[in-house]
Amino acid sequence: MEPIRIFITGGTFDKEYNELQGRLFFRDTHLPEMLRLGRCHLDLQTRTLMMVDSLEMSDNDRDLIRDACLRAQEQRILITHGTDTMEDTARHLGPFMTAKTVVLTGAMIPYAFGSSDGLFNLGSALAFVQTLPPGVYIAMNGRCFPWDQVRKNRATGTFEEIPPAR
Amino acid sequence: MEPIRIFITGGTFDKEYNELQGRLFFRDTHLPEMLRLGRCHLDLQTRTLMMVDSLEMSDNDRDLIRDACLRAQEQRILITHGTDTMEDTARHLGPFMTAKTVVLTGAMIPYAFGSSDGLFNLGSALAFVQTLPPGVYIAMNGRCFPWDQVRKNRATGTFEEIPPAR
Amino acid sequence: MEPIRIFITGGTFDKEYNELQGRLFFRDTHLPEMLRLGRCHLDLQTRTLMMVDSLEMSDNDRDLIRDACLRAQEQRILITHGTDTMEDTARHLGPFMTAKTVVLTGAMIPYAFGSSDGLFNLGSALAFVQTLPPGVYIAMNGRCFPWDQVRKNRATGTFEEIPPAR
Amino acid sequence: MEPIRIFITGGTFDKEYNELQGRLFFRDTHLPEMLRLGRCHLDLQTRTLMMVDSLEMSDNDRDLIRDACLRAQEQRILITHGTDTMEDTARHLGPFMTAKTVVLTGAMIPYAFGSSDGLFNLGSALAFVQTLPPGVYIAMNGRCFPWDQVRKNRATGTFEEIPPAR
Repeated sequence: MEPIRIFITGGTFDKEYNELQGRLFFRDTHLPEMLRLGRCHLDLQTRTLMMVDSLEMSDNDRDLIRDACLRAQEQRILITHGTDTMEDTARHLGPFMTAKTVVLTGAMIPYAFGSSDGLFNLGSALAFVQTLPPGVYIAMNGRCFPWDQVRKNRATGTFEEIPPAR
Repeated sequence: MEPIRIFITGGTFDKEYNELQGRLFFRDTHLPEMLRLGRCHLDLQTRTLMMVDSLEMSDNDRDLIRDACLRAQEQRILITHGTDTMEDTARHLGPFMTAKTVVLTGAMIPYAFGSSDGLFNLGSALAFVQTLPPGVYIAMNGRCFPWDQVRKNRATGTFEEIPPAR
Repeated sequence: MEPIRIFITGGTFDKEYNELQGRLFFRDTHLPEMLRLGRCHLDLQTRTLMMVDSLEMSDNDRDLIRDACLRAQEQRILITHGTDTMEDTARHLGPFMTAKTVVLTGAMIPYAFGSSDGLFNLGSALAFVQTLPPGVYIAMNGRCFPWDQVRKNRATGTFEEIPPAR
Repeated sequence: MEPIRIFITGGTFDKEYNELQGRLFFRDTHLPEMLRLGRCHLDLQTRTLMMVDSLEMSDNDRDLIRDACLRAQEQRILITHGTDTMEDTARHLGPFMTAKTVVLTGAMIPYAFGSSDGLFNLGSALAFVQTLPPGVYIAMNGRCFPWDQVRKNRATGTFEEIPPAR
């Protein structure tokens, strides 16, 4: 069983509800709980790189993610990420990750809200990262897109294919 | 986007709680609801072949599943199945399905019970069925096993690799 | 079985998550679903008066609630309300409701987030409204407080008894 | 705040799903978790008397429950109980409990299955036990019935009023 590295960066995946302030916020990642719930028995190493709303992710943050991917000993890497700028991070990584399989995934609904797409996406992303050749991909909506052929449709909240830029 | 055929056969996936009798039973499949929850946007055709506990699945039932797979126009097929005899059905299909990718998956906890591994498994099975070469596989616990190299460990409730029979 | 009037005013009870904007918002009340889930078989008449965050509730809104209570034909009235200003509305109603039993209740966690205290509070509020003598009360945390002897402790998120003002 | 004693006897309230055997079973009570979820701040003392399906409750078991109620120092007692024979236990206790308020409650759906009426019933039962005069009652479906005027309608799964036996 090939080892898989998971990098956590935050996003809707991990938002929680602060009942004293009535606001959404980040605390700890729910990933270990989700993997337990999914009875996942893969060889996984998880590390939290940051815990941010992806709308607030800077280029510095993206450099940090890229360096972490480049330095990782594993050939297969999963990144949990907010959906709003997931395509930006994918494009930031794409040209540099030619020797490793990197899959970004996220959620539209916080896992803590009980009806999340996160568990479904996590399952599919872990399968894609095990089977796809080196490259950077986004796994959302049951599908998998190469990093330069995908965008989030903000009206529908789904990811869709676009022709690669020339 | 390549079309995927889903065949539903029952299993823990779809068990519900009868509150008048205090017993588990089958009614309708939860698959459409799970796909909606997962915001899945694949090209899927779903058909219920049967709705049984896999401990009560007969060889006739398995012939029926095999025939349905052989006759399906799609090259990629997902089967939801009880975990207790999933490996038997995989072995029933394996020698005949050399031209199509067939993935069996299921759940240890009924989806209706709110803490199911089903959503995670469904996500991973749909990813595996899109990416793996022709053959019959079992997708459970985040992993994917060829049909002749897998068994359910009844003590732990997880699936594990075994050497292929000679 | 004595009829009970339910007035809905919004509050955390009924907040939902907008997955396109990543924000909390109001749509329809979850009360009918909650009553169904609770297998509630009381004689209830439900009406939505407004759907607001209680921090944005004005004195006009409170007059509207008071008038609705005064005009209701039922002797027993339940009001769902945001917790932030629940005590203010209770004080607004208190001096006028000497002939009817009025119980305000709410939730700290939105019902839609799957782990709500709302179902518990709804059950207790419906029991208190059936059994208490005329007056205005707040039912939260399993307890019931007269309108002039209660405040929300903002540090803990719980309601607590205070001496009546003189 | 008057202290309340809670006696746990099992019932659907506390059933769980054994994923290795695909069967329902009892382990620990979910009551503390439910009280935490409900943000309940009452003065409660909880004790598990037994953990049984109420169809298997014997007269000896009912004597044990009655003795525990008689010996309890608290004047207000809540009993969680399977719904199938809840009325039998209520009749067993009724003639003896003239000085204490005793409320029996339960659930049609196990709490662990995520969509339980248990949280709603628990909230209402705790409110009834605080407000009703001495006597034995069943709190289900948002209602409260004296011990000698109630039966479970097995066709609908709801509790209904009957004239007291003469």
